[in-house]
Amino acid sequence: MSGALGGKIVALSGGIGGAKLALGLDRVLAPGQLTIIANTGDDFRHLGLHVSPDIDTLLYTLAGLDDPVRGWGRRDETWTFMAALEQLGGETWFRLGDGDLAVHVERTRRLDAGASLSQVTDDLRRTLGIASAIVPMSDAPVRTQVETDEGWYDFQHYFVRHQCRPRVVGLAFAGASAATLAPAASAALADPELAAIIICPSNPYLSVDPILAVPGLRAAIGACRVPVIAVSPIIAGQAVKGPTAKMMTELGLVPSAATVAAHYEGLIDIFIVDEADAGLEVDGLSVVAAPTLMRSLADKIGLARFVLAQAGQGG
Amino acid sequence: MSGALGGKIVALSGGIGGAKLALGLDRVLAPGQLTIIANTGDDFRHLGLHVSPDIDTLLYTLAGLDDPVRGWGRRDETWTFMAALEQLGGETWFRLGDGDLAVHVERTRRLDAGASLSQVTDDLRRTLGIASAIVPMSDAPVRTQVETDEGWYDFQHYFVRHQCRPRVVGLAFAGASAATLAPAASAALADPELAAIIICPSNPYLSVDPILAVPGLRAAIGACRVPVIAVSPIIAGQAVKGPTAKMMTELGLVPSAATVAAHYEGLIDIFIVDEADAGLEVDGLSVVAAPTLMRSLADKIGLARFVLAQAGQGG
Repeated sequence: MSGALGGKIVALSGGIGGAKLALGLDRVLAPGQLTIIANTGDDFRHLGLHVSPDIDTLLYTLAGLDDPVRGWGRRDETWTFMAALEQLGGETWFRLGDGDLAVHVERTRRLDAGASLSQVTDDLRRTLGIASAIVPMSDAPVRTQVETDEGWYDFQHYFVRHQCRPRVVGLAFAGASAATLAPAASAALADPELAAIIICPSNPYLSVDPILAVPGLRAAIGACRVPVIAVSPIIAGQAVKGPTAKMMTELGLVPSAATVAAHYEGLIDIFIVDEADAGLEVDGLSVVAAPTLMRSLADKIGLARFVLAQAGQGG
Repeated sequence: MSGALGGKIVALSGGIGGAKLALGLDRVLAPGQLTIIANTGDDFRHLGLHVSPDIDTLLYTLAGLDDPVRGWGRRDETWTFMAALEQLGGETWFRLGDGDLAVHVERTRRLDAGASLSQVTDDLRRTLGIASAIVPMSDAPVRTQVETDEGWYDFQHYFVRHQCRPRVVGLAFAGASAATLAPAASAALADPELAAIIICPSNPYLSVDPILAVPGLRAAIGACRVPVIAVSPIIAGQAVKGPTAKMMTELGLVPSAATVAAHYEGLIDIFIVDEADAGLEVDGLSVVAAPTLMRSLADKIGLARFVLAQAGQGG
């Protein structure tokens, strides 16, 4: 490993939970030091628009445009589009705010004109003044599908339309086997200055597994010879937000930090659990406890510093 | 001609000015009696969305959703999308309101799924509770292009982006020769109950000529044997709104009701001018004067009744 302070950092992140740590890392690291590889398994075409929920959550969070009250979408958002669409009898189960629409319309326009998702995402983050790189896991479509007791659902139908109500029995990442890593993701993992890989506290099954399903990613991580550090999204058997714990139970798993650690076995070197789970021991892993609940910006920066310190990157 | 009260009426209309008379006609006539053939020469793809400005002006005006203060777009509109798009460095010269966007997104989604513009327009007007039929002149693209002293511009670039500033030297309707009348437009003109055809007070060159450029329309009007009545958009040498008078001067024409009458020569039977132009005489035409400036709903209904009375349709 390159233990030098100031080495490059790669973070794998899904939406809300992961974006909180990504924000902390972005604030702690120097411009250009951090590359965030984002889950695009939640992406879908809706109303003809390409929506990339996890990328947008990262963009809004790191640009300070996120809504701190609602917890998703943009601050100072208006909803005139949805009201008008409802009046027209359009599909309204997926709430698209008026400002949020600008990102979807602009992204779709550029993708349809031939740009890659990587190019569009990089231009968006630069335009929004974000110093860290945000990279989709792949420019090819990988689509998370959820097998439930009601049949298969595309991710957003399970997650938003049916509000995670159906019982989950399996998951698939359609298109993953034919996908390749986005060029900037490959480059970041091959960078000789890479000092650590961080798996953010996102849902391991819905947000991190789609990233890991892209061929070559696990091998690239294994080849890096830098610390791979995961932060548990489960605290004392509970998910901070979202369906992680419910889904784990439905999949026959005990919702616990230990189960998450087992899920990442062979991939990670260091596992960071919340202080509520201090004392957890896992064979072959260095398990350390820290305050992982990130409410304030100070919490996010604090956890980022702790994670980086585990990698020998300051602290 | 069928002079019976309650006969069917066809109106040709562009945007704002034409929509005012169309609203009056809609309020005076029984549901199903009026078919409005709308100019689609102003349509364009913008930000990947299919925008049909004249159809939308008719939809909003007849549904009571139009903005009475600004004079275009929707009432109670918000502009969060445009502000966010500007922040992203997107194209902002064409102002798309948040509610307006719902129509463009829904229309584009349906067109891309294979529906015709006629189908989409008919569904929209029914959903918005409009009793009169609104029909695009053609389901095929016909695009108004403006030749200016700066070169050729697509219509919206001339009209909105450059605010009609360049000097007009010519006009073309790209695609017109290959277009066919929309089925409902043909059907309305062939309806044995048709009692009159009304050319609304829209710009003759920019809004009515594109409709007339669709092959078969002039012949269909000529074959109808019902009164064809035009209302002058020029009052005492001035356009009520928009670039009509300026453009006429640039084209070497005297901006006057007489010039408009000459433009429609051979097509119309009755020409309605404003009281300010009373006394105008045109060979082969019945010229009648009425208050044609439509500020209030009562003005619009009053002019609609007057026009219909000229066709022997009540009054």
